[in-house]
Amino acid sequence: MGRRVGILTGGGDAPGLNAVIRAFVKRGAGQLGWDVVGIEDSFDGLMDRPRRVHHLTPVSCQGLLHRGGTILGTTNRGDPFAFPSADGPRDRRRDLVEGVKAEGLEGLVVIGGDGSQAIGLRVMEELGIPVIGVPKTIDNDLSATDLTFGFQSAVDVATDALDRLHTTAESHDRVMFLEVMGRDAGHIALHAGLAGGADVILLPEIPYDPHEVAEKVRRRKARGRPFSLIVVAEGALPAREDGSAVPHDQVKPRLKRGGGAAAIAMAQLEGLVDAEMRHTVLGHIQRGGSPVPFDRILATRFGVAAVDLVAEDRWGEMVRLQNGKVGGVPIREAIATYRLVDVHGEMMRTARAVGVEFGERG
Amino acid sequence: MGRRVGILTGGGDAPGLNAVIRAFVKRGAGQLGWDVVGIEDSFDGLMDRPRRVHHLTPVSCQGLLHRGGTILGTTNRGDPFAFPSADGPRDRRRDLVEGVKAEGLEGLVVIGGDGSQAIGLRVMEELGIPVIGVPKTIDNDLSATDLTFGFQSAVDVATDALDRLHTTAESHDRVMFLEVMGRDAGHIALHAGLAGGADVILLPEIPYDPHEVAEKVRRRKARGRPFSLIVVAEGALPAREDGSAVPHDQVKPRLKRGGGAAAIAMAQLEGLVDAEMRHTVLGHIQRGGSPVPFDRILATRFGVAAVDLVAEDRWGEMVRLQNGKVGGVPIREAIATYRLVDVHGEMMRTARAVGVEFGERG
Amino acid sequence: MGRRVGILTGGGDAPGLNAVIRAFVKRGAGQLGWDVVGIEDSFDGLMDRPRRVHHLTPVSCQGLLHRGGTILGTTNRGDPFAFPSADGPRDRRRDLVEGVKAEGLEGLVVIGGDGSQAIGLRVMEELGIPVIGVPKTIDNDLSATDLTFGFQSAVDVATDALDRLHTTAESHDRVMFLEVMGRDAGHIALHAGLAGGADVILLPEIPYDPHEVAEKVRRRKARGRPFSLIVVAEGALPAREDGSAVPHDQVKPRLKRGGGAAAIAMAQLEGLVDAEMRHTVLGHIQRGGSPVPFDRILATRFGVAAVDLVAEDRWGEMVRLQNGKVGGVPIREAIATYRLVDVHGEMMRTARAVGVEFGERG
Amino acid sequence: MGRRVGILTGGGDAPGLNAVIRAFVKRGAGQLGWDVVGIEDSFDGLMDRPRRVHHLTPVSCQGLLHRGGTILGTTNRGDPFAFPSADGPRDRRRDLVEGVKAEGLEGLVVIGGDGSQAIGLRVMEELGIPVIGVPKTIDNDLSATDLTFGFQSAVDVATDALDRLHTTAESHDRVMFLEVMGRDAGHIALHAGLAGGADVILLPEIPYDPHEVAEKVRRRKARGRPFSLIVVAEGALPAREDGSAVPHDQVKPRLKRGGGAAAIAMAQLEGLVDAEMRHTVLGHIQRGGSPVPFDRILATRFGVAAVDLVAEDRWGEMVRLQNGKVGGVPIREAIATYRLVDVHGEMMRTARAVGVEFGERG
Repeated sequence: MGRRVGILTGGGDAPGLNAVIRAFVKRGAGQLGWDVVGIEDSFDGLMDRPRRVHHLTPVSCQGLLHRGGTILGTTNRGDPFAFPSADGPRDRRRDLVEGVKAEGLEGLVVIGGDGSQAIGLRVMEELGIPVIGVPKTIDNDLSATDLTFGFQSAVDVATDALDRLHTTAESHDRVMFLEVMGRDAGHIALHAGLAGGADVILLPEIPYDPHEVAEKVRRRKARGRPFSLIVVAEGALPAREDGSAVPHDQVKPRLKRGGGAAAIAMAQLEGLVDAEMRHTVLGHIQRGGSPVPFDRILATRFGVAAVDLVAEDRWGEMVRLQNGKVGGVPIREAIATYRLVDVHGEMMRTARAVGVEFGERG
Repeated sequence: MGRRVGILTGGGDAPGLNAVIRAFVKRGAGQLGWDVVGIEDSFDGLMDRPRRVHHLTPVSCQGLLHRGGTILGTTNRGDPFAFPSADGPRDRRRDLVEGVKAEGLEGLVVIGGDGSQAIGLRVMEELGIPVIGVPKTIDNDLSATDLTFGFQSAVDVATDALDRLHTTAESHDRVMFLEVMGRDAGHIALHAGLAGGADVILLPEIPYDPHEVAEKVRRRKARGRPFSLIVVAEGALPAREDGSAVPHDQVKPRLKRGGGAAAIAMAQLEGLVDAEMRHTVLGHIQRGGSPVPFDRILATRFGVAAVDLVAEDRWGEMVRLQNGKVGGVPIREAIATYRLVDVHGEMMRTARAVGVEFGERG
Repeated sequence: MGRRVGILTGGGDAPGLNAVIRAFVKRGAGQLGWDVVGIEDSFDGLMDRPRRVHHLTPVSCQGLLHRGGTILGTTNRGDPFAFPSADGPRDRRRDLVEGVKAEGLEGLVVIGGDGSQAIGLRVMEELGIPVIGVPKTIDNDLSATDLTFGFQSAVDVATDALDRLHTTAESHDRVMFLEVMGRDAGHIALHAGLAGGADVILLPEIPYDPHEVAEKVRRRKARGRPFSLIVVAEGALPAREDGSAVPHDQVKPRLKRGGGAAAIAMAQLEGLVDAEMRHTVLGHIQRGGSPVPFDRILATRFGVAAVDLVAEDRWGEMVRLQNGKVGGVPIREAIATYRLVDVHGEMMRTARAVGVEFGERG
Repeated sequence: MGRRVGILTGGGDAPGLNAVIRAFVKRGAGQLGWDVVGIEDSFDGLMDRPRRVHHLTPVSCQGLLHRGGTILGTTNRGDPFAFPSADGPRDRRRDLVEGVKAEGLEGLVVIGGDGSQAIGLRVMEELGIPVIGVPKTIDNDLSATDLTFGFQSAVDVATDALDRLHTTAESHDRVMFLEVMGRDAGHIALHAGLAGGADVILLPEIPYDPHEVAEKVRRRKARGRPFSLIVVAEGALPAREDGSAVPHDQVKPRLKRGGGAAAIAMAQLEGLVDAEMRHTVLGHIQRGGSPVPFDRILATRFGVAAVDLVAEDRWGEMVRLQNGKVGGVPIREAIATYRLVDVHGEMMRTARAVGVEFGERG
């Protein structure tokens, strides 16, 4: 009763953000009678004058469950400790403290990735503004939580693209490269590749040998399958002699037409395989649109759990899912680790067992 | 090497069956060199003469990953201990033993629900035919495994239907009832209801009081929301004075137009609420079609795990997922328990926290 | 300039209504500067006091293009000449005239089916209120226009259901009946059946002989296809000896479990074919949800064309599509005729050419 | 009776090719008893030795209706008059004539775009092999037919991508560029842009002025819509002073990261608008996957109509749709003209009426 809490979304958007906001408001404002204040564009809405904040009620959250994006807006540029400006990073801590005070907020709920959570932690520890975190990473690379919303939606978009490329690859006997999100961790590539029947998956975790990839393509052709589907995570790179990844800036110049990881991979294969090749970059399509039911439910659970953490004054904690149960973990602990694909784990074993290859050097 | 194993699907079909078969064949036949024999229509294909069996190879499994149904066919009538016939149940144990012998099978992989697994166990214990189980229940009601493939696909179909009913309900100020699968356990209803923004969810686990449902509809109307979405599990029934469910045969006569759980629920509300009402029964649409990526992956993991169990001669075990890991559990143990919706669990708490009601008596 | 026009939606909702409203407002209000007044629930919003009307602007129409239903609400009970009430139909013409006057409306744009268009015509001719019509029939049965929005979206939903039923029918060797919309005209059944690979399509236009249907099912089984998909339009009925349709009330009592056209058809086949049979009724799912791109475009064209008709003072006309061009036709002419499936037309010939049957008596 | 006809698919694949093949076989082989011979990879399968041809029957066409791609395979390199080889184009006319003779084919059904149709015509006129054409262009740019299958499927994929980009653009206040197919004609861009609510559509038919595009983006921002969606056809290019398009090779060097039309357009806007910008290239995803119901029906009609043309010995004609009716047109006439977007037509007027702009110079 009488609580007044701010809520904001930071970093790249992910399907399910609105479902978190809706759940938080339905439970916090609708059932517990709190004042919930939506802050625009990460921390920005609190630092500007006039402030861009909105009183959120269950009525203002109608229809949000299946809507992509975030009604609060988001940005990667909302760091009050180092706010980007023409003259370099600017210190806007005072603006933030004043904003929180002027709005009478008891604390902030920060829905965001590891970057936003790290800022949230500093906001709490250095500025004394209580913060609760809700994890958001479409890449599912936060090890503190078993799953994050948005990931399954991204996998679905990527799998649908693979299903489509499959028929056209087969019709034309082509090698098709599909680049999906995943700069550091290849979870989306691995899951979508497995679900979409990819022949090769290139991951940031495994620098690949183009000759191994070419060999796989040739073996398929020899078996009467003259087409191949290759999923490439954004962060996948070819290997050097010692097995480490070729630095990105050394690969780029070798490309004819520039581009990202899929273009690089395709360029590496030219000359090694005798087949038409094409590449596609899914890009932001993976982020947008209505969340799949799985993510709507997970996001709703996270939103309700955030209310629980606030109600129990567990400031400094972040919502997380662990072994099927939603609970809290100290933000400090949550942002300390990162989950890469376990290259010896069961998912990888499964992939290999159905014939997927990863371009590993023999 | 030299192993020869039969594989069959029993009971109602579920999206992902073909993905299990494909993974089993790719790993077992393609990589390990086993003979894999596909048996048509549950145990039937082995009992008939001529037998309906097929040699399965990676080539015969091309394109199966995203295909719904089961290429092996399935039936609910394949029990060799009590085979349905015009003259009553018939003992066909000898036919089965002969079939297995004639095909030279070392053992059978039974992909099926608790009914098929129980038959599989008897086949192993009473007839001496080694069996490995792979769980299949679209209702996700086997407590031995945290998840089964097909469930998420069914939830997706039901959620899509709710999304569609939402707009037409709102346009017409109607109360819409959607009946989804779930005779004994209401998992699909709960998940789809949560993902689709249902106002009321009626579960087999909670006999409902029509007056409570009507009250919810009225409260919404009073708040300017003159429409409601009500998800009804097949097995949901109204409560008697003592809180127990009204037996099904006592409810039916009160219906004007007959029908299942949704029609019953709608009939119960007539006279109690002043609104147009409509009901829809999703039926077999929930079972069919391409599995969602989540189920394709889970099914693939199960298929590979079944190969592992066979390779390790762990006959008598069933594949299962527990705390994120795929492994085995004795079939006997697996079929002994059943998972209902935990009416005091976190999913129910989450649903209530966003305003979903269940028709519980105050 | 200075024009002030009301817009309303009547009858059952259809995907695309919001896209018409959006286009009308963007063009009329946004570009031409008109006052556009949205009226709630068909003519009702004008007859009540306080009136339920809303000033519509491009801002209030943001996000409407892909949203199902109608933001204005709709009803089948808005006839001012015979308004349904507890004491029988009531004359509310005066209320309507006063409402139009009080709102200062120059005329009304009526988006609706033949029922709503007929009321609109009376409103114009008897009450002197100028009216422009926009056709809306999900069944595509208005002969004055080649196509109406919503139809293709309904066909897509029905086809998706058929695709799903296909895999489960094939796995279980079942005969599956799918009931789709179409009381008088079978266009949805014919198109969805053709797109979804139905074996039999039962249309309101052709009373069917159950023996012919059974014969088709048997012939498929004999050719090794022991399953069948049968699409049933709501208005399809079995034939009598003389070839005419059995009256609906004479068929119903023969049903075990009651129900509509699909249940009737299934009951007719019992005893005639040796196969498990199941039926599904799609119902309101066909009306709801986001319109397919085809319908969004058509609805947008209709909305813009309605502005053109108003701008040219062509009151009394209805928008229509003819030979690829959008234009106007007198409402009186438009509602005089009705388009049934041409049972000798090219679409039917095409269906027969790929083996679809219609249960016609030899 | 006793007819023996070859069928092949040439050029880029399009959703619906398999549905044409299925319909042709069901009608021709299944009902009329013809021998239908499927030829692999355009004309290639006839020229090679051993020939790659298959006897097609209704059984071999099961499940094809909703399957993307073409089971016959296709290629852009199958011209017998100028067959691509390492030593330059090779004359393989004799191989083709011998192939047709050896297979005993009365004639060929060529499903393909204007390139394939032109080859087909030469094959008929110069080599004396009778040919019937079935038009295939995903771009819908053949003026001889009102519509071609595959187009609507491509529009649906592009519109879905726009829907997804919409939410992420809005959340981040970004300007999003989506590149869709259309080298010479912008039909896909226009339709998808209209259906997906694009703010600007850049067409091959209208060289665009970046300042006009920037002005539109700025005006939106001033009205409180700080994001924009821009659809770019592959062939869209900026205008020179005189209004003509800048030649492609003069634009490319100005790009930082290389790329196609969307990257060019984005580069043109840099410095002109103050907003984050991103671009996505849909590529081959537009070609693949299951055809939408609309295309399945159209393809089926075309396949049946091709049988009619053969049956009536109307060799030298191509199937086409005109004013809602399927019929034939001489191939020579069909390939003589090309349909660009009519920049003064009703679709363009409609687009402008809802606020879409095309970057036209004032």
